[in-house]
Parts: sequence; structure tokens; C-alpha cells
Amino acid sequence: MGTSLILSDLGTEIIIPVCALVGIVFSLFQWFLVSKVKLSLDGSGGKNAFTESLIEEEEGINDHNVVQKCAEIQNAISEGATSFLLTEYKYVGIFMVVFAFIIFLFLGSVDGFSTSSQPCTYNITKQCKPALFTAIFSTVSFILGAVTSVISGFLGMKIATYANARTTLEARKGVGKAFIVAFRSGAVMGFLLAANGLLVLYITINLFKIYYGDDWEGLFEAITGYGLGGSSMALFGRVAGGIYTKAADVGADLVGKVERNIPEDDPRNPAVIADNVGDNVGDIAGMGSDLFGSYAESSCAALVVASISSFGNNHEFTSMMYPLLISSVGILLIISTILMTIGIALVSWIALPSSFTIFNFGAQKEVKNWQLFLCVCVGLWAGLIIGFVTEYYTSNAYSPVQDVADSCRTGAATNVIFGLALGYKSVIIPIFAIAISIFVSFTFAAMYGVAVAALGMLSTIATGLAIDAYGPISDNAGGIAEMAGMSHRIRERTDALDAAGNTTAAIGKGFAIGSAALVSLALFGAFVSRAEITTVDVLTPKVFIGLIVGAMLPYWFSAMTMKSVGSAALKMVEEVRRQFNTIPGLMEGTAKPDYATCVKISTDASIKEMIPPGALVMLTPLIVGYFFGVETLSGVLAGSLVSGVQIAISASNTGGAWDNAKKYIEAGASEHARSLGPKGSDPHKAAVIGDTVGDPLKDTSGPSLNILIKLMAVESLVFAPFFAAHGVNVGAFNFLEICAI
Amino acid sequence: MGTSLILSDLGTEIIIPVCALVGIVFSLFQWFLVSKVKLSLDGSGGKNAFTESLIEEEEGINDHNVVQKCAEIQNAISEGATSFLLTEYKYVGIFMVVFAFIIFLFLGSVDGFSTSSQPCTYNITKQCKPALFTAIFSTVSFILGAVTSVISGFLGMKIATYANARTTLEARKGVGKAFIVAFRSGAVMGFLLAANGLLVLYITINLFKIYYGDDWEGLFEAITGYGLGGSSMALFGRVAGGIYTKAADVGADLVGKVERNIPEDDPRNPAVIADNVGDNVGDIAGMGSDLFGSYAESSCAALVVASISSFGNNHEFTSMMYPLLISSVGILLIISTILMTIGIALVSWIALPSSFTIFNFGAQKEVKNWQLFLCVCVGLWAGLIIGFVTEYYTSNAYSPVQDVADSCRTGAATNVIFGLALGYKSVIIPIFAIAISIFVSFTFAAMYGVAVAALGMLSTIATGLAIDAYGPISDNAGGIAEMAGMSHRIRERTDALDAAGNTTAAIGKGFAIGSAALVSLALFGAFVSRAEITTVDVLTPKVFIGLIVGAMLPYWFSAMTMKSVGSAALKMVEEVRRQFNTIPGLMEGTAKPDYATCVKISTDASIKEMIPPGALVMLTPLIVGYFFGVETLSGVLAGSLVSGVQIAISASNTGGAWDNAKKYIEAGASEHARSLGPKGSDPHKAAVIGDTVGDPLKDTSGPSLNILIKLMAVESLVFAPFFAAHGVNVGAFNFLEICAI
Repeated sequence: MGTSLILSDLGTEIIIPVCALVGIVFSLFQWFLVSKVKLSLDGSGGKNAFTESLIEEEEGINDHNVVQKCAEIQNAISEGATSFLLTEYKYVGIFMVVFAFIIFLFLGSVDGFSTSSQPCTYNITKQCKPALFTAIFSTVSFILGAVTSVISGFLGMKIATYANARTTLEARKGVGKAFIVAFRSGAVMGFLLAANGLLVLYITINLFKIYYGDDWEGLFEAITGYGLGGSSMALFGRVAGGIYTKAADVGADLVGKVERNIPEDDPRNPAVIADNVGDNVGDIAGMGSDLFGSYAESSCAALVVASISSFGNNHEFTSMMYPLLISSVGILLIISTILMTIGIALVSWIALPSSFTIFNFGAQKEVKNWQLFLCVCVGLWAGLIIGFVTEYYTSNAYSPVQDVADSCRTGAATNVIFGLALGYKSVIIPIFAIAISIFVSFTFAAMYGVAVAALGMLSTIATGLAIDAYGPISDNAGGIAEMAGMSHRIRERTDALDAAGNTTAAIGKGFAIGSAALVSLALFGAFVSRAEITTVDVLTPKVFIGLIVGAMLPYWFSAMTMKSVGSAALKMVEEVRRQFNTIPGLMEGTAKPDYATCVKISTDASIKEMIPPGALVMLTPLIVGYFFGVETLSGVLAGSLVSGVQIAISASNTGGAWDNAKKYIEAGASEHARSLGPKGSDPHKAAVIGDTVGDPLKDTSGPSLNILIKLMAVESLVFAPFFAAHGVNVGAFNFLEICAI
Repeated sequence: MGTSLILSDLGTEIIIPVCALVGIVFSLFQWFLVSKVKLSLDGSGGKNAFTESLIEEEEGINDHNVVQKCAEIQNAISEGATSFLLTEYKYVGIFMVVFAFIIFLFLGSVDGFSTSSQPCTYNITKQCKPALFTAIFSTVSFILGAVTSVISGFLGMKIATYANARTTLEARKGVGKAFIVAFRSGAVMGFLLAANGLLVLYITINLFKIYYGDDWEGLFEAITGYGLGGSSMALFGRVAGGIYTKAADVGADLVGKVERNIPEDDPRNPAVIADNVGDNVGDIAGMGSDLFGSYAESSCAALVVASISSFGNNHEFTSMMYPLLISSVGILLIISTILMTIGIALVSWIALPSSFTIFNFGAQKEVKNWQLFLCVCVGLWAGLIIGFVTEYYTSNAYSPVQDVADSCRTGAATNVIFGLALGYKSVIIPIFAIAISIFVSFTFAAMYGVAVAALGMLSTIATGLAIDAYGPISDNAGGIAEMAGMSHRIRERTDALDAAGNTTAAIGKGFAIGSAALVSLALFGAFVSRAEITTVDVLTPKVFIGLIVGAMLPYWFSAMTMKSVGSAALKMVEEVRRQFNTIPGLMEGTAKPDYATCVKISTDASIKEMIPPGALVMLTPLIVGYFFGVETLSGVLAGSLVSGVQIAISASNTGGAWDNAKKYIEAGASEHARSLGPKGSDPHKAAVIGDTVGDPLKDTSGPSLNILIKLMAVESLVFAPFFAAHGVNVGAFNFLEICAI
């Protein structure tokens, strides 16, 4: 049992939870630092802050009124966000109960709900636990994954809404101070989520082991439910959150800016709070659940493949826990890719035997520890490359965005064309980076290699989340400054943070889609292994039609999510119009709008509108797997993966570029930018149109595609034994096949 | 030798050329009818036409001035189009010589340029002709395919430019008359092209047979060059033509409409002739070469698979010619899908044995004649479904386009979003139609089935081309009416024709992409057969990275073609500005602009700008095949096929929908449409922006993708023996593979 390893099993049992706890403590400490910025004036911390800040600048620093107003607005946003989440959780609850029942029923039926032991799938001489109990444990781990995701998302959102007004207040002291608050808050979320995910998974494995004992095949089969749980919450977070954020945004703009001609974030606009809430539910909770899902899924994919490899067969616990050890080191070494490379080398050295075998579609493949090290590294570095490329294509410091801004001279149409072309072009290098990672990791260690490459990319998940959360916090800070009636200078500072935030958000999305691609390939591989398929041959009609229909699904799904945003936005427009028409004194600023109703409308509409795209994702694997068989399902998974990843990258980069092209013209920081501006010029108007087109692309349909490709794969993985047991003899193809004989 | 068949070999030898000649005669007759509309007033035909027309309407019917002007404009367009084609042919000539040399060199090197016979690949006991001679014959058939394509495109363009002014003149007598002229001219092109392609292919096979004798494997290997020749001309036609048409269009609009505020098609605009020429080079010559390429390729794919099946092994000539017989019947039975179904049944009955075997990736598969009949039918009917769905999504008679028009109320951004979503949605049913065709034909008769399904879809090629050519002819007719200063009523009539033309153009594009998908799958299958691969397993790293990189290529290619349009349009803008600034009296209409220079600029720019995307298409198979091997190349072909077909469909439907949404508002035919108009209203302006965005999507980047997926596949097929002979021992993967052992 791994006697030759430097790291003992006991060491592993200590290292993983300790790293997780360090992460949690660190994030709580960051929270404490953020909380030192006081929103009321009667604390000693507040006084300290004032004394210190007075040295730097004095603008409005002692204006109690402003602080009071900021606190009020923050409260409204926080309440709105909480109300969205609580409503969402009602539906999540129903979904969880129903789906848990389906998992239990389908997986339990594999062996006719028998409670007697059965021969193991991969080692027929051994006895494994009954399928019924694996069904129960899968259901439990599904619920645990879902609950962990929900808690992480909830905490992230609490922190973000806690931080936004504080960022606004710090902006009075300068951009640097505001940046620190925003970034720290992002870090709280990143660390909490990464550490929580690891800890719960670790505890679950240890608890399940008590029942499963020697049957690691069954143990890690049951653990895959954790990934499915995490990922199905991401469906709610990303899709419903994405619809919410854009419905509120577009609804607020269409009536406020276009019809009533009042500025963005004007407190008279009834949808203004919903708009700010949207930034949090979409980008914070949605992104958090998405990345948590990726993390849970890639860990599960690695574990399930390892369980039928030499680690699992020989019960080498430490080596088995290699994926979790990588994540543990990731929590400690988040800062730099180079440090992380050293950390991975260390873990590979102490936790792996120098040579071992990995299950490779029916055969065992020999792998060396340094090869596995390279698998993790290639994922890690590919993530870095994707990050840089995304920055290049979406930051207004570089020529691509400046060219898009320049194209606004000839109108909105050329802006849209240039933006679309930029998005298409931005796909090239990330895809090569992903392809190289896949090739290296796949060649070295089959699907296990791909799974650990995904974990390598996700080992910087904490930083990724931090930089992503930073964006919406800054965006909200700007909104609060406007609503609280703070000076133009403060607004300029938050705008600067916000422009950087657009780029970091795009980078975060780049990471999310890159890791989603690797994760879903790993899940796909794990599914194929468990469905006992040894080849997925494109040269068979079943696979090929799966491939082409799978490649179509991202388009279908995008059309649905874009339509959902449109319908939800329309409801918002009607409510905002109603309030302007029926509340006397609203336009004059003498009456207060009814923010809560707008929040409620966004909430209800977004959850209702997520049902069709959600159903497409959840039902496709079940229908295809049951009626058309696992080969066609394999084709669908591969097709949607290779097609979806391209649309997701191009959509999020196109949207980011349009947003920043607009900001580039507005900021007027260079001769070129000034020649296009100022606000309200024809080129600026064209840039605003591009920005509006990009909103649903970058915040709804693009990022939702991650969920499409991952969730279908993990669902297929969990239900693989069911398809294998029942899908064979039904088959919608049977008629044709009989004809073709 | 097929003694049990109803149709004798002699019968086949007669039927095919007779059908082709009937097609040619029919198209010449249509041409004769079109030529009865006189552009000068001194012929007896002219007088007859006048007498007849006076009964109906008299508006400007005897205005010699108008007729004179129309004749002049048509001359200018015709000259411009010819000058583009002649310039293009210079480059085509160079390309053909270079590429013919490459084909000869690469294929000749397969067996070291040896002139001695060699054992056949699929029947080692037999002697086949030396590879050197197959290289020579492949080169010859490549040149024949290219020349046939060039001649067809040239004739099509001549006819179209011949017809446009005649359509304008007929519009004075009513919409019906004008429609007949436009549609008849389209039919001339459709029939000429279909019949020519068939005849040349038939003659080539018969001539090559004199040398090859019994060696049908070598014979039909050499014939694949015909497909490559046809398809590489389509690269010039579609890509250079697509860039030309949009560069001229956008260039004319940006200066004319936006800067100088003169209407579309105003004769003062120096780019107006180039714009009209563009419609012909892009949609007529480009579409013609695209569909001709599809036809030649699917025939070649079917023939090469059949040559190593029982037909080829037993030398059953009539059955071997089944694909050509289908096309022959197609020429006679173009009118209706139902009639065509009967025709196919007849051919399947008389030309096929009741049972035979088809080569299926290393094995022989038994096929019944009725199964092959179903394969052709499923392609034919899938084409019909694609046509209907395209019409539904792009015609302003249905709700999708009306919804897009309605979204213009809230501005250009919502119009763009709705249009993109419409395009995504329009992919769903066509993909299911294609998937079902593939499944049925693949299951029944492997890749031979897919190839004949493609031929089934293309059996209506003549009609497809006719309805497609009708669009630009009507568009040009409208332009000529405007330039000749004809009355508003005439213009309204040509506009009505033009709106229908947008839909027929979209349907034509739907056919083109649908058949391209089937054709490239068939070519892919033929390639795999000839490269002696028996499985293309997604679960190998080589194939998977090919798949994901292949799925990226359409994005790369689209980014390139969109950029090309931008650069070419910019050059046009500069020239038009220069003329307005330097030619005195141009704006006042007292001086004539220099149309020829604009035509020349478009021509040069489009051919220069097509080089990067063209190189991407031509080099990818060679580089991937040589350095990474045939498995990765298989992945690339499959990936680009399943991803490209989606983008192509959505791009052409989105563009068509935007164009017709604009026309819907302009026409104001319903209460709803009038509430959005009139021309110049805010919703109309928003619709114009959508239309401009859609132009490069529907006319350049979308249709060019057909070429990407087909050309890469046919090139791989032609070079398959080369990769098989040389690609094995080089391999860029070798280093990694050695590491991974």
C-alpha cells in the first residue's frame, strides 16, 4: 500500500485538511481587513480610518450624509441579492429532491434494487458493494455537492455585497485603496470556495470509505455524484444568474437611458438596484458555482479513473489522493504559476510511485511520476496562456480593442463586424493551448492525465475567482457612487477600476471555459470507461450523427438563453415604465421608486426563463443515452465540447472587447481615443450599440455554455451504469438496424 | 458484368450523354427566350415585344432614352464582371499550374516515380497501373475539373449580366414579366452547369478507361482530381467573389449613403458599377462554382468508394455509373421532388443488381438496391426540408423575420441580438435533417450511401442554381432601374423581386451548405478508405486534438474573410472619396465618375485578400497530413465539418433575415410594418445597421465555409496515397510518443 512513497497515508490525511483550513482562515482574515472600512461613523475603526485618510485627501471624507447613503444603497443591494438567492433556493430545493430521486431510482434499478453484493465490473473475481447502496451514496454525494456549491455561492455574494459600498468609500482616498478593498473581497470568495470544496470532498471520501472498505471502485463511483451536484447548482447560478443580470441591465437601460434620458445608475430608475444586484448574482454567485463545479468534476473524473487503475487496485491511498493534494498545494501557492509548478513537482515526487498504471479504455497504461507532473503543468501553463491571450484581446491597452473602437468611426455596423471578427480570432491561440494540453496529458496518462491537467488549470482557482469577483464589485462601487451623489472624481476612479474589471472578468471567463473544456473531456473519458466502451469511432453512423447534433446543441442553447434574456428584459421594461407613469414625482426625484418589485420581477423571470435551456441540458444525456445508446451519447458529448468551447470563448471575448472599446472612447486617455469621443459623439453611440449587443453574449449565453458541456458530461458519467444496464435493448435505431442487416 | 441488369452498359453509355445534351439544349432554348427581350429598338423582336406589351401598360415603354441607358449600364456591368473574371483567371492559371505540379510531384513520389506496375491496394493478387501514371491522370483530371468550373462560371456570369437590364425593361410591363426573365436566366445557368459537369466527367471517365482498362481502382483514383479541380476553383469563386461583392457594396454605401447622402445605386457614385458587378461575381459565379464543386466531389467520392466495392471488383459498368445516372435523371426531372423520387426509384431498379457489396472501412458490406434508393431519397428530401426551414427563417412573410423587424423599435442592438439568436435557432432543424440523412445512408451503405445522398440533394442542383441566380439578377435589375432614372413604380417592382430574391438566395445557400456537409463526409470517408484507416477513434489524443483544432478552423477562417472584406472595403472607400474630391461636377451630376478604376480596385483587392484564407484551406491538409499523420487529419476534417456547417447555416440565415427585416419595414405592406417605417425612421435606421452587419456574414464568411470543409476533404482524398506513403515516418508527434512509451 504505497510503502515506497515519501508521503505516508497519515501525512496525506493531515496535509489535505490542514491546507483547506489554512485557506479558510486566510479568507476570514481578508474579510476582517475589509470589515475595517466602516460604513457607520460610530466605531473606533472608522475613526482610525479617517485619521489616516485625512492625510491623503479630504474630498467629502467627513460627509456623514454620503456614508449614510452608501450604507442604505448597499443594504438595498444586499437585500435584493439575498432575496434572489432565497427564491432560487426554493426552486433549487425542488430540483434537488426530484433529481436526487431520479439518481436513486435509475442507479438503484441497475441491479434490480438488489441488496446483495455483486462481482466488480473491472475485477470480476472480487465482490463489490450492491448497486442499490452505490445509488444511495451517489444520491448523498450529489446532495453534498449541491449544498457545498449553494453555501459557497451564498457566502461569496454576501462578501461581494458587503464590499461594494466599502470600495466606493475607499475610492475617496484614491484608486489604490479602492482597488485593495475590491481585490481582497474577491480573494475572500476565492479562498473560501476553493478550501470549502476541498474539505467537503475530503471528508465525504473518508466517511464513505467506512462503508465501502476495500471496494474503491464503488466508493469513487458514488463520489461522482459530488461533481454532478456541484455542476447542477452551476446551472442555476450561471443560467438563471446570467439571465437575471442582463434582464435587469437591459431593462434599466432601455427605459432609463433611451426613453427617459436619465444617466446610468440614476437612483430615480426603479431598476437600478436590480441592475446592481444582477452583477452579483451573475458574475459572483454564477461564476463561483461554475468554477466550483469544474473543480468538483475534475476531481471526481480523476478519482473515478484512478480507482480502476493501479492506485485503486492496490489501494494506494496517498497516490489516489493526488488530485486533492494538487488542489491543497494550490490553496497555499496561489500567487504565481512558477511557484505552483514547484509545488506540483514536490507533490508528484512525494505522493506518487515512480511508475504506475492507469486505466486506458480497456487496457492498463504505464505512467511515470514525472509524466504526471508534466500533465498537471501543461494544464497550469495553458491556463496562463489563455489568461494572457484573453487580456490581449479584451483590454483597451492593446491594439485589438483599439481597432474595434476605431471602427466606430464608420458606425455601429462596422463596430459589430469588427467585434465579431475579434471574437473569432481570439479563439485560435486558446484552442491550440487546450489542444496541446490535451495531447500531452492524454498521451502520457490517458483520461487521468486530462483530469489532472484540468486540476492544474484550476489549481489557481482561488486567484481566478478573486480577479473575477473584483470586476462586479468595482462595477457596483461605481453605481453606488453615482446613486449616493458623490463627485465626478470618485466616479472616474471607480470607472478606472471597472475597465480593469472588464478585462479581469474576461480572463476569469477564459479560465472557466478552458478548464471546462479539459474537465468535460476528462468526464467524457471517465464516462466512456464506466460505460465500458473501448472506442468511439467517428466512422460509425451512430457516433457521427451524435457528433454533428452535439456540435449543434451550443447554438440551440445560445438561442434559448438569448431569447430568455429578451423575454425577461421585456417584463422589466414594462414594470419600469409602469412605475415612471404611475408614481408621481419620480422623475423629479421627490418620490422614491419601488426597487423591490423590480428585483422580484427579475428574480421570477430569470428562474422561469432558465427552465427551457436547463431542460435541454439535463434531458439530452438521459434521452440520447437511453434511446440511442452510449455510442451516440459519446458523439454528442464530443461534438458539443469541441463546438461549444469555440462559441464560449469568442462570445465572452467579443463582449469584453465591445465593453472596453466603449470605455476606451469614454475615458479619452490618448490622442486617438479623444478623436473618437467624447461621450455622445457618433462613434461613442456606435460603441454603445456594440456594448449592448455584447452584454448577453459575454454574461449569459457565452458563460452558460461551460455548464452545457460540463453538466452533460458529468450527468452521463453518473448515469453510465444505468445506460449500460438498460439502454442496450431499447434503442431507437433498432428498426433501422434490422432493415440494414 | 452486370448481365442481370435491366439497363445494359450500352444503354448507360447512351443515357448519360443524351441527358446532358438535353440539359444543354434546354438551357440554350431558355437563353433564346431571354434574348427576345431587346435592348435596342431596331429589331423585329423588339417591335413584337412592344406591340404585346402596350396592351398591358404603357409607362415609359417607348422611351428610347431609357432603353439606351439600360443598355449602357448593362454594358458597363458586363465589362466589369468580365474584367474581374479575366484578372481572376490570371491568378487561377498560376495556381493551377503550381498545384498541378504539386499533385504530380506528390502522387508520383508515392512509388518513387517508377513506371512499372504494382500490386493493387485492395486486391494484392492483381496488378494495377503504376503510381506515376495515376499521378499524371490525376493531374489531368484536376485541370479538367478546374477548366469545367471556370467555363461554367464564366457562362453563368455572361448570362446573368445579359439578363439584368432585360429584367429591368420587362419590369415596365409588370412584376410577372420581369420575374420570368430573371428566373429563366437563372435556369440557363443551372442547366448549363449541371449538364456540362456531367458531360465532361462522363467523357473523362471513358477516355481514362482506354488507358486503365481493367484497373478501375486506379481509374477512379485518378478521377478524384476532377473534384479537387472543381473545388479549388470554387475557392476563388466563393472567397474572392465574396470579398469582391461586399467590399464594393460596403465601400459604395459608406461614402455614398453615409458621407455624401446620396441614395443607393445612384449613378454619381463611382463604386455603383462595381457594386452591381459584385452581385454577379459573388452570387452567380461563386455559387455556381461552389455547387459545381459539390457535384463533382460527391460524384468522385461515390465513384472511388464504388471502385473498391463489388461494382468495381466485378467491373459492372452500369452500376458503377449509378451516381452519374442519378444526375442525368436530375437534369430531366428538375421540377419536383416527388417526380425526382420516382426517377431515382427507376434508376435504382434498372441500373443496380438487387444486392451487392460496398467497401466499408476494411470490410465489405452487403447492400440491397432499395436501400440505395432510400439513401438517395433521404438526401433529396433533406434538401427540401432545409429549403423550407430556410425560407421560414429568412422570408418576411413569417414571424421570425417580423420579430427581428419588431426588435428594431428598441434600437440596433436588440436587432443584432435577435438576428444572431434567429441564426442560431435556424440551425436546429437543418442539422437534424442532415443527421438523419447521414444516419440512414451511412447505416445502409456506408460512405457510398452518404455520397449518393449528397447526389440526391444535388440532383436538384439545376433548380437550386436557378433560384439562386435569380436573386442577384433581380438585385441588379433594381440598380439599373435606379441608374437609368426609371420611375418609382418600376423600382417598387424590382424591389419586390429582390425581397423574394433574398429568400431564394438563402435557400440556395441552405442547399449549398447541406450538400457540402454530406459531400465532405463522403469525401472524408473516401479519404479514410484510401488512407487505409479502419477506425477514427475519438478516444485517442491524435484524433481528439484534430477534432478540437478542426472545430476551430471555421472561426479562424471567418475572422480572416471578415478582415479581408474590411481591408478591401477600405481601399474602395479611399478611391470613392478621391473621385468625389477630385472630379469637378461629380456631385452635381455634370461629370461622369470613373467606374472602371473602382472595378479594378475591387478586383485587385479581393484577389489579394483571398490569399491568407485560401492558404489556410489549401495548406492545412498538407501540413497536418504530412507532419501529424492521417489520424489527426481525420480528426481535423471531422471537427471542421461538424463545427463549420453550423456557423455557415447560422451566418447565412442571420444575414438573410436582417436584409429582409429591413425590406419588410421599407415595403410597409402590413399595419405592423407601417408602424415601424417609413424609410429613415429610427427603427428603419436600426434595421439598416443589422443589414450591414449581415452582409459579410451571408455573402462572404458564411458561404466560404462550404469551401473550407469540402476543399480540405477532397484535397486529403487526392493526397491520401502520398500521406500513406510518406507521412508515417516523419510525424511531429514522434518525440512525445517516444517519451510516452
